[in-house]
Amino acid sequence: MMRRSRKKGLVPGTPVHIGQKMTDISSVRLVDFNETDILVTPDAAKEDITRKPPGDMIRWAHLTGVHDVELVQALCKQYNIHPLVVEDLVNTEHRPKVEIHQDYIFLVLKTFNLEGKESISIEQISFILGPTYLLSFQESDDPIFQPIFTRIEKDHGNVRSSGADYLAYSLLDLIVDDYYGFTESLSEHVETLEDEVIENPTTTTLHGIYRLKRIVSIARRNLWPLREIVGRLYRDPSSLIKPSTNIYMRDLYDHVIQVNDYLEGYREALSSMLDTYLSSVSNKMNEVMKVLTVISTVFIPLTLIAGIYGMNFFNMPELTWPYGYSTILIIMTVMGILMLAYFRKIDWI
Amino acid sequence: MMRRSRKKGLVPGTPVHIGQKMTDISSVRLVDFNETDILVTPDAAKEDITRKPPGDMIRWAHLTGVHDVELVQALCKQYNIHPLVVEDLVNTEHRPKVEIHQDYIFLVLKTFNLEGKESISIEQISFILGPTYLLSFQESDDPIFQPIFTRIEKDHGNVRSSGADYLAYSLLDLIVDDYYGFTESLSEHVETLEDEVIENPTTTTLHGIYRLKRIVSIARRNLWPLREIVGRLYRDPSSLIKPSTNIYMRDLYDHVIQVNDYLEGYREALSSMLDTYLSSVSNKMNEVMKVLTVISTVFIPLTLIAGIYGMNFFNMPELTWPYGYSTILIIMTVMGILMLAYFRKIDWI
Amino acid sequence: MMRRSRKKGLVPGTPVHIGQKMTDISSVRLVDFNETDILVTPDAAKEDITRKPPGDMIRWAHLTGVHDVELVQALCKQYNIHPLVVEDLVNTEHRPKVEIHQDYIFLVLKTFNLEGKESISIEQISFILGPTYLLSFQESDDPIFQPIFTRIEKDHGNVRSSGADYLAYSLLDLIVDDYYGFTESLSEHVETLEDEVIENPTTTTLHGIYRLKRIVSIARRNLWPLREIVGRLYRDPSSLIKPSTNIYMRDLYDHVIQVNDYLEGYREALSSMLDTYLSSVSNKMNEVMKVLTVISTVFIPLTLIAGIYGMNFFNMPELTWPYGYSTILIIMTVMGILMLAYFRKIDWI
Amino acid sequence: MMRRSRKKGLVPGTPVHIGQKMTDISSVRLVDFNETDILVTPDAAKEDITRKPPGDMIRWAHLTGVHDVELVQALCKQYNIHPLVVEDLVNTEHRPKVEIHQDYIFLVLKTFNLEGKESISIEQISFILGPTYLLSFQESDDPIFQPIFTRIEKDHGNVRSSGADYLAYSLLDLIVDDYYGFTESLSEHVETLEDEVIENPTTTTLHGIYRLKRIVSIARRNLWPLREIVGRLYRDPSSLIKPSTNIYMRDLYDHVIQVNDYLEGYREALSSMLDTYLSSVSNKMNEVMKVLTVISTVFIPLTLIAGIYGMNFFNMPELTWPYGYSTILIIMTVMGILMLAYFRKIDWI
Amino acid sequence: MMRRSRKKGLVPGTPVHIGQKMTDISSVRLVDFNETDILVTPDAAKEDITRKPPGDMIRWAHLTGVHDVELVQALCKQYNIHPLVVEDLVNTEHRPKVEIHQDYIFLVLKTFNLEGKESISIEQISFILGPTYLLSFQESDDPIFQPIFTRIEKDHGNVRSSGADYLAYSLLDLIVDDYYGFTESLSEHVETLEDEVIENPTTTTLHGIYRLKRIVSIARRNLWPLREIVGRLYRDPSSLIKPSTNIYMRDLYDHVIQVNDYLEGYREALSSMLDTYLSSVSNKMNEVMKVLTVISTVFIPLTLIAGIYGMNFFNMPELTWPYGYSTILIIMTVMGILMLAYFRKIDWI
Repeated sequence: MMRRSRKKGLVPGTPVHIGQKMTDISSVRLVDFNETDILVTPDAAKEDITRKPPGDMIRWAHLTGVHDVELVQALCKQYNIHPLVVEDLVNTEHRPKVEIHQDYIFLVLKTFNLEGKESISIEQISFILGPTYLLSFQESDDPIFQPIFTRIEKDHGNVRSSGADYLAYSLLDLIVDDYYGFTESLSEHVETLEDEVIENPTTTTLHGIYRLKRIVSIARRNLWPLREIVGRLYRDPSSLIKPSTNIYMRDLYDHVIQVNDYLEGYREALSSMLDTYLSSVSNKMNEVMKVLTVISTVFIPLTLIAGIYGMNFFNMPELTWPYGYSTILIIMTVMGILMLAYFRKIDWI
Repeated sequence: MMRRSRKKGLVPGTPVHIGQKMTDISSVRLVDFNETDILVTPDAAKEDITRKPPGDMIRWAHLTGVHDVELVQALCKQYNIHPLVVEDLVNTEHRPKVEIHQDYIFLVLKTFNLEGKESISIEQISFILGPTYLLSFQESDDPIFQPIFTRIEKDHGNVRSSGADYLAYSLLDLIVDDYYGFTESLSEHVETLEDEVIENPTTTTLHGIYRLKRIVSIARRNLWPLREIVGRLYRDPSSLIKPSTNIYMRDLYDHVIQVNDYLEGYREALSSMLDTYLSSVSNKMNEVMKVLTVISTVFIPLTLIAGIYGMNFFNMPELTWPYGYSTILIIMTVMGILMLAYFRKIDWI
Repeated sequence: MMRRSRKKGLVPGTPVHIGQKMTDISSVRLVDFNETDILVTPDAAKEDITRKPPGDMIRWAHLTGVHDVELVQALCKQYNIHPLVVEDLVNTEHRPKVEIHQDYIFLVLKTFNLEGKESISIEQISFILGPTYLLSFQESDDPIFQPIFTRIEKDHGNVRSSGADYLAYSLLDLIVDDYYGFTESLSEHVETLEDEVIENPTTTTLHGIYRLKRIVSIARRNLWPLREIVGRLYRDPSSLIKPSTNIYMRDLYDHVIQVNDYLEGYREALSSMLDTYLSSVSNKMNEVMKVLTVISTVFIPLTLIAGIYGMNFFNMPELTWPYGYSTILIIMTVMGILMLAYFRKIDWI
Repeated sequence: MMRRSRKKGLVPGTPVHIGQKMTDISSVRLVDFNETDILVTPDAAKEDITRKPPGDMIRWAHLTGVHDVELVQALCKQYNIHPLVVEDLVNTEHRPKVEIHQDYIFLVLKTFNLEGKESISIEQISFILGPTYLLSFQESDDPIFQPIFTRIEKDHGNVRSSGADYLAYSLLDLIVDDYYGFTESLSEHVETLEDEVIENPTTTTLHGIYRLKRIVSIARRNLWPLREIVGRLYRDPSSLIKPSTNIYMRDLYDHVIQVNDYLEGYREALSSMLDTYLSSVSNKMNEVMKVLTVISTVFIPLTLIAGIYGMNFFNMPELTWPYGYSTILIIMTVMGILMLAYFRKIDWI
Repeated sequence: MMRRSRKKGLVPGTPVHIGQKMTDISSVRLVDFNETDILVTPDAAKEDITRKPPGDMIRWAHLTGVHDVELVQALCKQYNIHPLVVEDLVNTEHRPKVEIHQDYIFLVLKTFNLEGKESISIEQISFILGPTYLLSFQESDDPIFQPIFTRIEKDHGNVRSSGADYLAYSLLDLIVDDYYGFTESLSEHVETLEDEVIENPTTTTLHGIYRLKRIVSIARRNLWPLREIVGRLYRDPSSLIKPSTNIYMRDLYDHVIQVNDYLEGYREALSSMLDTYLSSVSNKMNEVMKVLTVISTVFIPLTLIAGIYGMNFFNMPELTWPYGYSTILIIMTVMGILMLAYFRKIDWI
């Protein structure tokens, strides 16, 4: 893995891939479209990239494999993207952000995948939205944008008839829909743990809670900034986002806030589960202590009595009584029963 | 139950019912009224919906059963409601919000019902307030707005003579009054638990506290946004809310803040009850430990003495003393009493 | 007691008394005054209320017993007070607030009384300040405003020569002075508890801390809004508050902030006392455990030795030694002393 | 001690000394100076106070002993100070604040003295800064401003050549420098406690931490407002503070922020020490429990064996074996060693 | 070490070195450059400092060893730096800050070095950025700015062709890159501790967590203000920062926020590790208690039985039964096994 510190001392704006490589392949898919026509170049060569889309067509260039720094640079050169933006594109450890430049808007965000209940994998998705183009960048070759691609091809919805800004909205909307799926998986794990905590809390439950807390905390760190990001897209719209798209951005903003609300709810639920767990552990301890105390309190005095009559004094009259033994056994039994009754009364057993 | 993630990949603005279906029936009741006349259509057919109210009449259309997506769409089409708003209307997992559109105001809020002390049921109520109409949407067929309906019919208060905005206020006011009932039920449960915590805290009490905490937390999440929502209605009033209605909105705002204050108070009370519970558990543990320690400390030395005189050495002069046995019994008794006296002195028993 | 939920479904602006009735009597005292003359009507009849004060006189109408809804309405009708304000006046569970209306300012605040160390009683005081009149409303018939009344009668201070706004300030100042007394009582209870926690913390101390925490929390909830209320009176003064009175309002604002600071301080002190209490309980538990461990560790091995020489094997040579018994007693004593010395060394006893 | 509540019912603006009297003597020292001349009146009589300083001289009047209400009033009368300000001057329990009046600026702040590690003493210092005069008020007769006085006398720095505002800055700077000394003393106590907590935490350490926490909390409450106070002097300067002095105020502001940062740091350190203390206590408890458990687990089974062979059955063949006794001793020893080895393995001893 | 309180009473603006001396040597390196030429004076004498750089050259003066107050003063005098700024330059305990003066910008920040896992060393770096010059000040003689120096010499990047502001950015960027290295070291220590906490938590782990928490807390205190500092450079740029440099400042701002995010993440991770540690300690305690209870509960009743048959009553018929002994042994074994089975069933062993 490439670490961020490797860049120390490099000239600012030098693009260096930072992070884990998530695929071996890198490619660019060009989709040029307007209301009537569509032109798809699945694996665009360098010449395809430099060729302008015909007429008034909107171009959507989707790049998979941002570790291919040269490819990213080649694509960005076409649209005069600032070197610092290119540097950020290939740095996959960047926090979510929006930058409104003169000619384009630059967006960085993350998608999540739960891997079992244990861990979370994060992928960085970036967008550059220009007046007539949209560049999207992805780490892996996971076909997450397939539904939108299909929609454009089959001319569903109004993606074809709207501009690049509506396309950007559609992709963002898809990602946010993904967050709903992610929160629903989380929700199931939270509920499973909740049942465990109440029915039979074990150390495994505890570790499960901690792991889930951590996942929620990571997700929050990456989703919280989205409120501000989408909020900025919707509130101070540059001329790049048309008023007709603006209402969609507001809807998106609502969804982002709701996803964050869900996460907040899980966080609270997990904290409260931790408290429940701890107080249940403390209750158990209490039970253990009570058992120990009851046993000791009941048997230790009886043992003393047995010890007394085991002494070897010559002159112990009780020893010679014919019913001495049975008397003492009865006394012991009664004492034991009385003590148990007392403990029952004070609700210890 | 329909989950939110099912919408992934759908064209934005596609209305899909999300959430639990709360009734089988869906219907629209039209109430057209002005100061002098009233016209009620209890179960409006499609033609009734498309027919305009006569003259200067205000129309209140109340729809029950938002799972009936088609009905919602039919009603909304009449007033040119944006598809995204329709999508939100049939999504019953939406958080409370207000949207001030050009021609209408869109409101989403929730009502609560305590089911026993255990859980809370939530219903979503939405409003669309236009210049001369008010649309209200409800999940179930619970007649929550009956009092206002009666008031219009019998011409109580000034609903008939005021516009759609005052009608909207009246409905909101009814919902907020409902919150007072809800907080009073909560308050009773909180007090019951408070008594239990002080008199006889058990694990049931603890679970009760956790459950109530959760209910309060859910209610807060749904009521906190209301401050902003009603605050916006009252502070930056669009032309849809007349100045005469504005003062009522301010009053409503006060009530919303008070309900939130109550919830805040319950939250604090529950937290403090948890602390009390935990310290009482810890105190009990302390008591248990003291009993154990006192018993052990008193009896273990005596047992040793008995053990010593149970040894089988040939040459143990005490054994042959005529008063050996009684002397040792007296010594043991005195030792035990002295130790008990000591523990009493240091306040352990 | 009347509960808030009883109002559900009533027409907004219907005045209903909410809360406990604090007195049986209700009356209005009219005080008309200018710089030279004063006219007092102790128990004003309805005609007195409707009669205007002569000339340029300022009228102070003080109503005791807000449960008398009709009397409140009669008084308010004289000054065209909005029905919603009247509704708030007779609702004694209202949170403190200020409302700046066109013609008058409406203020709600609370006074506190400590009842023993146990609980707090709250009374609601409301004011309506107009250009030439001040209405004050009180739940009980406690003569809290007597000092101001005396001051007006004897022409002390400049109440007589200043307007209704200065009179309002004087009454507010009196209430805030009352808060100082309240905080001083709290302060004494806090100090008593502090001593108890350090010297001899018991369960009573703990409950005392919880009770005081609750009282402080209630007081804070009612005093915190005062910052904003008095702050608004002083910062955006309507024409109802003259510049000469404004500097007094700023002084009042300072006092309100200081009272809130005190409460904050008590809250911190109580939290820290709780921590001290809990760690002292935990320390005691530690002591108990140590005693138990020392006793067990010292005596259990000795008991084993005694047990061994109590075995009935035929061939146990030590038993026949002439000094066997005394040797074993000496060994036991030495072992016990050594173990005690060890525990002393590691600082357990 | 005079308590604040004694003022209840008094006419606002009545000066009453509140707080502890810190000295018996009260006096005013007048220092009139300009760039060339200086005129000192150490113990000014009433005539001296009313006499104007000659020519363009700046007057610094320093009053010690604010309990002398009459003296304070006499001095303030000279400069038309508002009665409410005079009231605040003699109230030594006032919180730090700044008031920017038409003709003068009124400042209240505090100095601290650590008395041992145990407690903190607080003194209130007030300033009234006018265009050509500075009045300073002090509770005790501690010569805290001596260095500035010396600097003026010997014409060090540019106090003489600058105006009253720079003089005010110099005095404030001296007080803030005092805060550095105070924080350094705190810092030493914090470090001492830190060592104790790690090396040998006792109950004394715990109480030391609580006491220091409290001192830090009191200091914070009095220093936090200084940020706003000095910030206001520096940011919205009235004409009373010249631009040339303004840069010094910014420097002062920096220092005030740094002192607050230090306090924040101590607070964190103390909190973290508390955590360390508590977990060390809990660790010790754990150790104690382990010792008890090891001892019990090793000896109780052995005691049972001894008990078994102490039974008096006629037919116990082992008892008659020639090596019965030594065999059983060996078995016991081996069992004990094995159990100890096991406990060592699981890391309990 | 020089302490801050030593300055008490000194005339404001008196430069006194505060803090530890980090090197014995102090020197100034002058680098004069423009797009075509470069002139380096490694160890500038006083005359070099006063000599102006030829033509339109930018001067970068780098001073190592700020303890040399005279050298700092000599350098600053050249550029009319305000005495208060000089005072701050030689005070190495200053908090990070930015001051935008008329003619220059003054910046203070810190670099960190982890020394083992135990402690952190901090060095203060200050900048004064003028229109055509940049002064940088360093405590030690550590060549941290060597990469930039090399870049200027070899004309890499566009430092030579850009102004003093871009040079300042480059140095800041280098320091922020350093923070990345620092956070990565922290991250490794955090991960090591995380493994320890889960696998084998000891008291050492606990102390490690506390130490790291403290380091993170110190780093946060020094890095948090950087958000505001760089934010101010980027948001309200004075004319000293050219628009072309501004975009770089925004990039830097992003990095500063990310570093702070990392620290926030470590802080959370450490807190959560503490919780894990404590609950693991509490779990262990629970285990210990269970062992003790199981042992006591199993053996104490058996010991009582043995004690009973060790009593010396004459008439104990069981003793004479031929199979008495073996019967009692079997009963004991069965009892023991049953009790162990019960404990297994309730999941204690």
